[in-house]
Amino acid sequence: MTSRTKYLLDESDLPTTWYNVIPDLPEPPPPPLHPGTREPVGPDDLAPLFPQALIAQEVTQDRFVDIPGEVLDVYRLWRPSPLYRARRLERALGTPARIYYKYEGVSPVGSHKPNTAVPQAFYNAAEGIRRLTTETGAGQWGSALAFASATFGLECEVWQVRASYDQKPYRKIMMETFGATVHPSPSKETAAGRAVLEKAPDSTGSLGIAISEAVEQAAADPDTRYALGSVLNHVLLHQTVIGEEALLQFAQAGDTPDVIVGCTGGGSNFGGLAFPFLREKLAGRIAPVIRAVEPAACPSLTRGRYAYDFGDTAGLTPLLKMHTLGHDFIPDPIHAGGLRYHGMAPLLSHIYELGLIEALAVGQQECFAAGVRFARTEGIIPAPEPTHALAACVQEALRCKETGEEKAILTALCGHAHLDLPAYAAFLAGRMTDNELPESVLAESLAGLP
Amino acid sequence: MTSRTKYLLDESDLPTTWYNVIPDLPEPPPPPLHPGTREPVGPDDLAPLFPQALIAQEVTQDRFVDIPGEVLDVYRLWRPSPLYRARRLERALGTPARIYYKYEGVSPVGSHKPNTAVPQAFYNAAEGIRRLTTETGAGQWGSALAFASATFGLECEVWQVRASYDQKPYRKIMMETFGATVHPSPSKETAAGRAVLEKAPDSTGSLGIAISEAVEQAAADPDTRYALGSVLNHVLLHQTVIGEEALLQFAQAGDTPDVIVGCTGGGSNFGGLAFPFLREKLAGRIAPVIRAVEPAACPSLTRGRYAYDFGDTAGLTPLLKMHTLGHDFIPDPIHAGGLRYHGMAPLLSHIYELGLIEALAVGQQECFAAGVRFARTEGIIPAPEPTHALAACVQEALRCKETGEEKAILTALCGHAHLDLPAYAAFLAGRMTDNELPESVLAESLAGLP
Ligand SMILES: Cc1ncc(COP(=O)(O)O)c(C=O)c1O
Ligand SMILES: Cc1ncc(COP(=O)(O)O)c(C=O)c1O
Repeated sequence: MTSRTKYLLDESDLPTTWYNVIPDLPEPPPPPLHPGTREPVGPDDLAPLFPQALIAQEVTQDRFVDIPGEVLDVYRLWRPSPLYRARRLERALGTPARIYYKYEGVSPVGSHKPNTAVPQAFYNAAEGIRRLTTETGAGQWGSALAFASATFGLECEVWQVRASYDQKPYRKIMMETFGATVHPSPSKETAAGRAVLEKAPDSTGSLGIAISEAVEQAAADPDTRYALGSVLNHVLLHQTVIGEEALLQFAQAGDTPDVIVGCTGGGSNFGGLAFPFLREKLAGRIAPVIRAVEPAACPSLTRGRYAYDFGDTAGLTPLLKMHTLGHDFIPDPIHAGGLRYHGMAPLLSHIYELGLIEALAVGQQECFAAGVRFARTEGIIPAPEPTHALAACVQEALRCKETGEEKAILTALCGHAHLDLPAYAAFLAGRMTDNELPESVLAESLAGLP
Repeated sequence: MTSRTKYLLDESDLPTTWYNVIPDLPEPPPPPLHPGTREPVGPDDLAPLFPQALIAQEVTQDRFVDIPGEVLDVYRLWRPSPLYRARRLERALGTPARIYYKYEGVSPVGSHKPNTAVPQAFYNAAEGIRRLTTETGAGQWGSALAFASATFGLECEVWQVRASYDQKPYRKIMMETFGATVHPSPSKETAAGRAVLEKAPDSTGSLGIAISEAVEQAAADPDTRYALGSVLNHVLLHQTVIGEEALLQFAQAGDTPDVIVGCTGGGSNFGGLAFPFLREKLAGRIAPVIRAVEPAACPSLTRGRYAYDFGDTAGLTPLLKMHTLGHDFIPDPIHAGGLRYHGMAPLLSHIYELGLIEALAVGQQECFAAGVRFARTEGIIPAPEPTHALAACVQEALRCKETGEEKAILTALCGHAHLDLPAYAAFLAGRMTDNELPESVLAESLAGLP
């Protein structure tokens, strides 16, 4: 064991391929269905929304997909990202565990989202598209697509969930600084938005509604496509650069992870970190426990149903087989805006059903307590989303303290909180609740499954 | 020439000494004077404010000062910091110049300030001090000391310039997340604050006033010391890790800087980057032009007087020989809060008088235009302070475009703007002015020199 704190890779170690876990699974995930025919959707159904290259990646059976040189060029602005050993946190916890975190906050917008925003913008630009639309919750994804669009000369229009638009003015400014246009969602610009506003003029919005708005706009204009920041296979594919780098960094450290934890909103940062390790596990080379962590207020994996459901509220998307709380479900406005989504990536849902990963839900107070502890020891204030992973990390490290086990724990620190600081103010002032999801609310929303 | 974009150092390349430029200068800088006797101040005069180790560093004649292991341990959380080649910006400008930036935004608080906050907190803790007081303008320095204090178990109390306290609530939350207590300045807690509020109840404050408040509190309590985030010799000393690393990184790149530009508030990030290169220049090994950039609204080097003046508004500090606009001067509330200081580091002022560096002043609109251009190409939104350096960088790169010169330009990108985004909103909305300093205002404030 070396005593280093930071594991950096050289630019030449930047992965040149993304990893597709699907061919390595014992069975393939169920396909998306057309809501009318309930038949599997084909490329033509998706063409109004996505460029051909991404549609191809969505269904590819190749284990590895080449990363275009133009994308690598932009990745190099911040990648490879560092892997840290959290020695100061370990000491503060008095644990024999070794805690490692892969830090994606070094990206232009402070999270893992540009890993997929950049290739999405690239493929759209390459196919002559002029404008991208998208939704954003926490604002991380909207910022990422704004940055990526600026890079490849695309216009970018973002529907930002109203609650976050109002609470997080800094995110909007960041998107505008990168040249994007930002609308609060629900908005009057779309039929989907107007329908919501008619029933609930004060609606604070949800990711599901914002997706409907962005999809509607893209479908209506042949020069415009839609970009999704999580959930889909191609998004998880792009995020595997995280795990591929982490594998190299663990080799550098001369260590092997026993436990891998990550937070799951739509599943992309978690899948991105975990899939390359899952490949090694399926090949019998390592045997880590892999654990997804979600908020108690929006527990799609642990309390949702595994069923076909829409990806958005208005029902404009194909039906996806996933763990879902129901597409009508509007989660409480917890501070981890990026985890407020009713569904979970179909690929991750499938892998969970196969028993290859575990899941648990955590209340937000425990998460922020872990976040503050982390900030005061490691110096990075974690975004509200990855505080969920850190809370699970702390749980594991404290178990190791009791049992004396010297486990190596790896977590995805998928973003910093610079633009989410009001959440910490609420926590420090004792103004934060755990927003548990009542059984009755869940039952009602599941009753609306298609 | 390699085609790499990012020059990373290994942890083992982290400098283990700070560099003191004073013994290498043709003559030493004039000493600080006691305001009563006008005699040079001795260690005893400073003991109520600073620990012995820092007082010794303030006057040391050693060329190199060892960095304690405990400090290196914390530096390793983010150091060595990266040096980037701004290829995308170069392409956008169409310049034959090579533009490099040393990026300090990777630190826990997003700027270079922790480079000195960490050793300052360490030396205070080592001498049994329990509490630190300080001022902060932009909030970068207060956040840095809050983080460093948390690391070494010290209490930390910060007086934040009122204008910034009101405009930048996120900075206050960051300081509180790291465990500090924050007061707006002028405050009712101190005699200096009350005196200002009596004359001007709506005062938006200044760094000079906030320093008076923090100094007054420290001097009144034997367990408390004061920490200054810029201006003094020991602060510039600690910041030389920036330049030492950059020297190694230029060697990696196989290149040599022809022009070095940095922004100057109190002079610490500029000195920290420039002094190691100045050493090499004085030794005849390289010959870069070294250029300080200040805001047109607060132009101490280019329009101030080189004279003895107080470091604070109430006149509690020793007299410092420096370029000053007068200690009563209250700069316009430009967005670069960290550049709103009436004086310039005595050491940097002296070096400027010796003709070893150049200086220029830039209006803030040109700065933010450079900042937006940088963000959309390089993906990092620069803090308002280093946009000044970037504006000068762009000027130089465009001159190269005209002349065809292939100069290598090095700049200090000393922080990111995540907590300063409202400044970009003002710029994008066309609500920003240049706040030139009228001759009459300057003359009046210089008339108040002691
Ligand atoms: C920092 C951060 N983490 C996590 C998430 C959740 O998304 P995913 O599960 O796809 O990583 C988001 C989404 O916005 C995010 O911004
Ligand atoms: C980001 C940043 N840059 C520059 C400065 C100016 O200080 P100095 O000239 O000492 O580097 C500050 C001061 O707060 C700052 O926060």
